[in-house]
Formats: sequence, structure tokens, C-alpha cells
Amino acid sequence: MSTTQTYAVTGMTCGHCESAVREEVSRIAGVELVDASASTGTLAITAGAPVDDAAVLAAVDEAGYQAARN
Amino acid sequence: MSTTQTYAVTGMTCGHCESAVREEVSRIAGVELVDASASTGTLAITAGAPVDDAAVLAAVDEAGYQAARN
Repeated sequence: MSTTQTYAVTGMTCGHCESAVREEVSRIAGVELVDASASTGTLAITAGAPVDDAAVLAAVDEAGYQAARN
Repeated sequence: MSTTQTYAVTGMTCGHCESAVREEVSRIAGVELVDASASTGTLAITAGAPVDDAAVLAAVDEAGYQAARN
């Protein structure tokens, strides 16, 4: 069974931004799917088990954006 | 002596976009300096001799944006 966590992300303006977020978040252990949308400002992560929010927020920060858990 | 050519570029929204344009345009033979600005929508190229506009427009297109010579 997989779980999905969603976040609001500010600052993404284009496909390059989405890719930067996807790349960083995909590195988190256990993450199976990452969907980042600049147009809606959302990030959805699917994983086999819940992922630590702090790790997600840190990964988004590393990519250069700000996230908050929905 | 160097010459500078400027272009109007539409579609760049962030630093990633600027980097994508810079990367493609920098590959053109003779180009010495490239400045791309998303905020002003401008591209400036400095080279030792005039660079073919078609090559510049093609490079910007390759990066995913549209340019027009100023």
C-alpha cells in the first residue's frame, strides 16, 4: 500500500523549476513518485510508507523553493 | 574589438530559463559573453565578430524560447 502526501510550494514558475523540485525530492529514501506542478504550486509524493515532512521541506528548500504540508 | 547584439526573448520566467538560454547560445562559435535576463526579457551576446542572427534564434528556440533581434 502506498501513501500520498501533498504540499504547497511557492516560487516554481516553469518546467525547469518542477524538474529541480522533482530531482531533489526523488532522492529521499522510499519515495516512489513525485509530481510537481508550477501552475498549481503543488507537490505530491507517493511512497510505500509515510515520508518525514522535514526531509521533504529540506529537499524543496535545497531546490530553491518553499514548501508547506497541506 | 567586440560587438554586442541584443534580442528580445519571450517565455523566460526564472533563473533556470536564463541558464538554459545561456547554455545554448554559448555554444555558438565566436560567442564570448552571454547575458540572459528573465526579468527584462533580454539577451545580449558579445562576440569578436558579428554572430549570425539565425544561429542565435535557433539556439534560443532549442532552449525552448522565442527570440527576436532588437
